[in-house]
Amino acid sequence: MERLAVAARAFSAQGSAGAGGVAMVQGASRGIGLEFVRQLLRRSDEGRVVATCRAPGNAAELQKLKEEHAPGRLTVLPLDVTDETTIEAAAASIQETHGSLDLLINSTGILSIPNVIQPETTLSKVQKSSLLLAYEVNAVGPILVIKHMWPLLKIGGRSETGRGFSLVANMSARVSSIGDNGLGGWHSYRASKTALNQLTKTVSVEFGRKDNIACILLHPGTVDTDLSRPFQRNVPKDKLFTREFSVQKLLSIIDSIKKSDNGKFFAWDGQEIPW
Amino acid sequence: MERLAVAARAFSAQGSAGAGGVAMVQGASRGIGLEFVRQLLRRSDEGRVVATCRAPGNAAELQKLKEEHAPGRLTVLPLDVTDETTIEAAAASIQETHGSLDLLINSTGILSIPNVIQPETTLSKVQKSSLLLAYEVNAVGPILVIKHMWPLLKIGGRSETGRGFSLVANMSARVSSIGDNGLGGWHSYRASKTALNQLTKTVSVEFGRKDNIACILLHPGTVDTDLSRPFQRNVPKDKLFTREFSVQKLLSIIDSIKKSDNGKFFAWDGQEIPW
Repeated sequence: MERLAVAARAFSAQGSAGAGGVAMVQGASRGIGLEFVRQLLRRSDEGRVVATCRAPGNAAELQKLKEEHAPGRLTVLPLDVTDETTIEAAAASIQETHGSLDLLINSTGILSIPNVIQPETTLSKVQKSSLLLAYEVNAVGPILVIKHMWPLLKIGGRSETGRGFSLVANMSARVSSIGDNGLGGWHSYRASKTALNQLTKTVSVEFGRKDNIACILLHPGTVDTDLSRPFQRNVPKDKLFTREFSVQKLLSIIDSIKKSDNGKFFAWDGQEIPW
Repeated sequence: MERLAVAARAFSAQGSAGAGGVAMVQGASRGIGLEFVRQLLRRSDEGRVVATCRAPGNAAELQKLKEEHAPGRLTVLPLDVTDETTIEAAAASIQETHGSLDLLINSTGILSIPNVIQPETTLSKVQKSSLLLAYEVNAVGPILVIKHMWPLLKIGGRSETGRGFSLVANMSARVSSIGDNGLGGWHSYRASKTALNQLTKTVSVEFGRKDNIACILLHPGTVDTDLSRPFQRNVPKDKLFTREFSVQKLLSIIDSIKKSDNGKFFAWDGQEIPW
């Protein structure tokens, strides 16, 4: 992974890749997604960002960011990964407004919702409804988003991005690694993210064959967000990252990705994670 | 993997492990599952087999096998992996009749059903309904079966099986390997079996900690069954196995598994498959 680190330094010396172009952040109302939007907007005066979330009207932070930036720099669109019609509508809207996509970051994820889904501590607590819900949100959703954004990604990745190809970055998590699974538990979340890894790899094979698009998986570390909050108790203080730090690291990876990294899974520090 | 091959030879010299005891084959009405039932019944005069399928009344081959063997050797029970109440009912029935389980083979799998689900050749053909159905049948189903058979497996694995622990063997497939995925396609099937791998690994961690149970994944090769029939065109003749051959190989792996193989993924030839 030394190569990635070196490339990241080179890029930051000459300005960020992806500073121009059109970037979409799916799942952007809070947590890591929101921070991606914030940092993408901050890194140049040119790049345009499309932020999607289930209810833009309630996404106060996104609306605030929109007001703080020049007209047209941030577009906020409704998108619910469990409702494919909203994905198609978002694609149509981006097509009309921007015409192409250079970067797509899938940042939604479900881990726990009181009375709906909880990370399982034992097999006896595994519920069919949790397994299916986690799969729908964490694996199916991002893949459907890629499916519908594919035509836009095909014609992106040229011009101002400095990358020369379009990039899809899916937020995965180290607990999705089967080889690294020494602790057990969290059945629904783990399996859904593992499936996302396989789906991303599968899509990357097709992209590698036909398109000027690369597709990668990212592990953000354990980040201080709503998602991780109920589980931070056991995380050593120096291992619990701020959103700012994690997204800074992830963007430096995104900046330094080469086409040959297509289909790979990177942690926040640039290390590849085993499947 | 040399160890496995040697162990298999040793076992066949002294009679098969698992020849006694109670073995359950889930998804037994046809294909590999049916062949497991046939060979398990044939290998001793003692072992009892519980075969489950959605509609025992229509499972002519199973009913024929039942008539051919001594009363009590084969029990056929209804079980639909998509209907958890049937799994619970089967567990209750096995509890009453046999009291424990020494071996559980999860053999159901869905790949293609005309007008319902087809292996995808490209991302643009990926459908949410297919992704969810494959996940429900191939990943969620087997895990729910293990969940409900767990109490029976906990008190199995002693006595006549020659193994000293209970064993769960889940049928996976080499295409579930992310590391080995160089061809792409088959999104729904691949991702569902990859998720099964992760779920099996997750369960194996808990079993390894608390129970006298091991849990493994098996790749049967490409076997001449209804499941593979539409896709056999591109399979070289010497790579298309008969059910007899594949199950013989898989049973020799099952016979030679050690507790330390818990959580591993083996191909029909005993080679470990990367995640």
